[in-house]
Amino acid sequence: MSEPKIRREFDDAGDAALNALRERFGERLSTAHAIVSQHSGLEGHHASLAPDAVIYAESNEDVADAIRWCADNDLPVIAHGAGTSLEGHLSAIHGGVSLDLTRMNAILDVSAENLLATVQAGVTREQLNHHLRDLGLFFPIDPGANATLGGMTATRASGTNAVRYGTMRDNVLTAKVVLANGAVIETGVRAAKSSAGYDLTGLFVGSEGTLGVITEVTLRLYGIPEKILSATCVFKDLDGAVSAVIETIQLGLGVARIELLDETQVRASNAFSKLRLVEQPTLLLEFHGSPAGVEEQALQFADIAAGHRGGALIIARTPEERSRLWKARHDAYFAAKALLPGAVVWTTDVCVPIAALADSILKTRADIEAEGALATIVGHVGDGNYHVMFAIDPQNPTHMARASRINERMISRAIEAGGTCTGEHGIGIGKRDKLIAERGETNVTLMRTIKAALDPANILNPGKIFVDGGARP
Amino acid sequence: MSEPKIRREFDDAGDAALNALRERFGERLSTAHAIVSQHSGLEGHHASLAPDAVIYAESNEDVADAIRWCADNDLPVIAHGAGTSLEGHLSAIHGGVSLDLTRMNAILDVSAENLLATVQAGVTREQLNHHLRDLGLFFPIDPGANATLGGMTATRASGTNAVRYGTMRDNVLTAKVVLANGAVIETGVRAAKSSAGYDLTGLFVGSEGTLGVITEVTLRLYGIPEKILSATCVFKDLDGAVSAVIETIQLGLGVARIELLDETQVRASNAFSKLRLVEQPTLLLEFHGSPAGVEEQALQFADIAAGHRGGALIIARTPEERSRLWKARHDAYFAAKALLPGAVVWTTDVCVPIAALADSILKTRADIEAEGALATIVGHVGDGNYHVMFAIDPQNPTHMARASRINERMISRAIEAGGTCTGEHGIGIGKRDKLIAERGETNVTLMRTIKAALDPANILNPGKIFVDGGARP
Repeated sequence: MSEPKIRREFDDAGDAALNALRERFGERLSTAHAIVSQHSGLEGHHASLAPDAVIYAESNEDVADAIRWCADNDLPVIAHGAGTSLEGHLSAIHGGVSLDLTRMNAILDVSAENLLATVQAGVTREQLNHHLRDLGLFFPIDPGANATLGGMTATRASGTNAVRYGTMRDNVLTAKVVLANGAVIETGVRAAKSSAGYDLTGLFVGSEGTLGVITEVTLRLYGIPEKILSATCVFKDLDGAVSAVIETIQLGLGVARIELLDETQVRASNAFSKLRLVEQPTLLLEFHGSPAGVEEQALQFADIAAGHRGGALIIARTPEERSRLWKARHDAYFAAKALLPGAVVWTTDVCVPIAALADSILKTRADIEAEGALATIVGHVGDGNYHVMFAIDPQNPTHMARASRINERMISRAIEAGGTCTGEHGIGIGKRDKLIAERGETNVTLMRTIKAALDPANILNPGKIFVDGGARP
Repeated sequence: MSEPKIRREFDDAGDAALNALRERFGERLSTAHAIVSQHSGLEGHHASLAPDAVIYAESNEDVADAIRWCADNDLPVIAHGAGTSLEGHLSAIHGGVSLDLTRMNAILDVSAENLLATVQAGVTREQLNHHLRDLGLFFPIDPGANATLGGMTATRASGTNAVRYGTMRDNVLTAKVVLANGAVIETGVRAAKSSAGYDLTGLFVGSEGTLGVITEVTLRLYGIPEKILSATCVFKDLDGAVSAVIETIQLGLGVARIELLDETQVRASNAFSKLRLVEQPTLLLEFHGSPAGVEEQALQFADIAAGHRGGALIIARTPEERSRLWKARHDAYFAAKALLPGAVVWTTDVCVPIAALADSILKTRADIEAEGALATIVGHVGDGNYHVMFAIDPQNPTHMARASRINERMISRAIEAGGTCTGEHGIGIGKRDKLIAERGETNVTLMRTIKAALDPANILNPGKIFVDGGARP
């Protein structure tokens, strides 16, 4: 949003510790205003606070040395990938060092025969998929942004394909992690399953940089389906679209993608992405499988849609048409942003048990209307997960207050329905109080116990996940 | 194996603490020899050590009170379900209280519309599936034994359906857990996914009763497939059978079950289960889906099998035939036991990346032959997971030593190949040293750190997972 604030200058002359760090990293350590500003958590609506310095790590040893130095100097260290997280994960609210991992972008190993890839944390999902294409393989997790795989692991990313392929939780087999004391562990093994001890991989996936810094991940790969069929389906009303999704999931149809754009989003996407979609609630679908299997699924879905005031299934006939459709879906954020000149986008998400989805979305849409807010709803609705994207003038307190109220009520209802305050964006600084509302004090106390055991000095991304997690002397 | 040893008598006259416990639990507290012996970890080849007492819990409050009492009196507490774990998880190596959860067997909630069931820990998988049948739903995780769902959660069970439906890790959405201090938490939510904080559910799944006692679990359900097709396929040699599995997985065929019985196991099962299978390496398969989809898969598999010296696919024509087949698979353990009069079975398992499976199984089979051991190989081979079941005379040190050597080498090779010392049986007391060999000291130290943070007095199933985890004052 606004120009990020600089907490304090880092380059105090004569600081021996800092000189040692400069000696270690040379030009890969920067305190330049332009650089630290870029690492202040610019995406989304949260306040951007710049770190004192940025270190560009190029190896596990770099990461370990940087963390050890921060531990010795009691300074926070914030792992940084593509910078696409949305809940303020990267804002340096207690200063410290941003550890930029984007130069650790080597694809270390691809084993087609084991359907596994091992990559450094800075490899992006598009980079990996580009590399895999000739092998007939792909990595399905697709949060929209071209995030790094390390960042996607740290935030338990999911996205459009999760309804079929799961989230990062399901697709990271093992990770290399540098702990708060600089020790390096491999969290798991390369076998499809293991019952050897605690699930450390699962513990680090989604830990938002607060338990360790992920430097490598080993990911499950999948064969590119023999047949991919993309389609859109327009509904008379939002209730019909969501009800069709619910029925699709309850019947176990096995869709690969089933995405909702509400009417406002379709209008925004038509304008931004130069589409000519009918401006009504729309589902974007994709089916993966054999030619016969895909056709069977599409026909079944068409039947379901017809029962919920849906129109005919409009098939994307060419790969280009398909790409354009998904590009528009991925650009939904920018389309929402373009609804209001000079806007920032406040994106929030919840996830509910599937049967509660219609009620959840309809009440939220009604709330948006009642408040007169400018906001779109899009979602990975097959998971019961949807986003509200508020186009907001950050200088207008009414805009912020309105979005905040709608967000509060949406989350309360989601929790009430047995759901979660965030399906895929995470807690960051934005939902720390919501985590307690959702899980209760005892649950969150246990999370804190784990944090304190693994990072007793609280140097790893302090102030994230826990309300007072950043309390530093 | 042999008569379980009793560590010490628990009913010291005049013990005020014990009297308080007796007052709380009445006849549901027992120190009777017959009862404690039944709770000593009788399954498998490990030494059975009886607890001092057994408490039959009937509520979360019972569990919390029992744990608090154990904490106050510095006594171990071992959660106990159906008693079917195989690596000595239930052996009371440091005495204490066995907390029998089998009376907590209520199915609390089934939500067909959300495809979720919430059950108490003592509900068995057969009980749940029997309850679900009329709703057209099922819970797929099937470790063979009719284990309790609490026990299956605590040991991260998987089994025959895991190749398609995943393991308990993938199918437990949230659990109610009583912590070492008697506090009760719900680990997660009922939504399909969440990125709210640490994955506590994942941490408790597979923690073998060392971090908390699981009293309720919420599980994913699935619609009973429109069509289920079971079949067998006989191969000329073991290499062919395993190679066919590898190709099936690499092609992403989506089989629901793909189980190997080696020649020795087929012989044992024919004798025990009154089957007339051809006594050659055999795959048992199951395909789930639409009629067309299932047929497509079966034809594809038949093609693969033909390329690996496999015979024709022999389809189970009736539900009875299908049941008999899977009953025989589930009875493989007893069939192996019956190979030698008076035998105990030492079952061990490893799991390797799929491409390493043929090498792993063939070398293990060769090792069994070279040692002259009596052992069968069966496996959930689609996951890269297989078991060796040694039929052993426990009085014969040669038998034990031979099995131990083969087990050591099999595990070393699995770890070398990037796999795990246990795909689904867990660590218990049997593989504590193997965990370190597999993960390294730093990784296991981190697990210990978590254990110490959550259970500082080490009262929860002490001595399991960690070699010196049971060191008590």
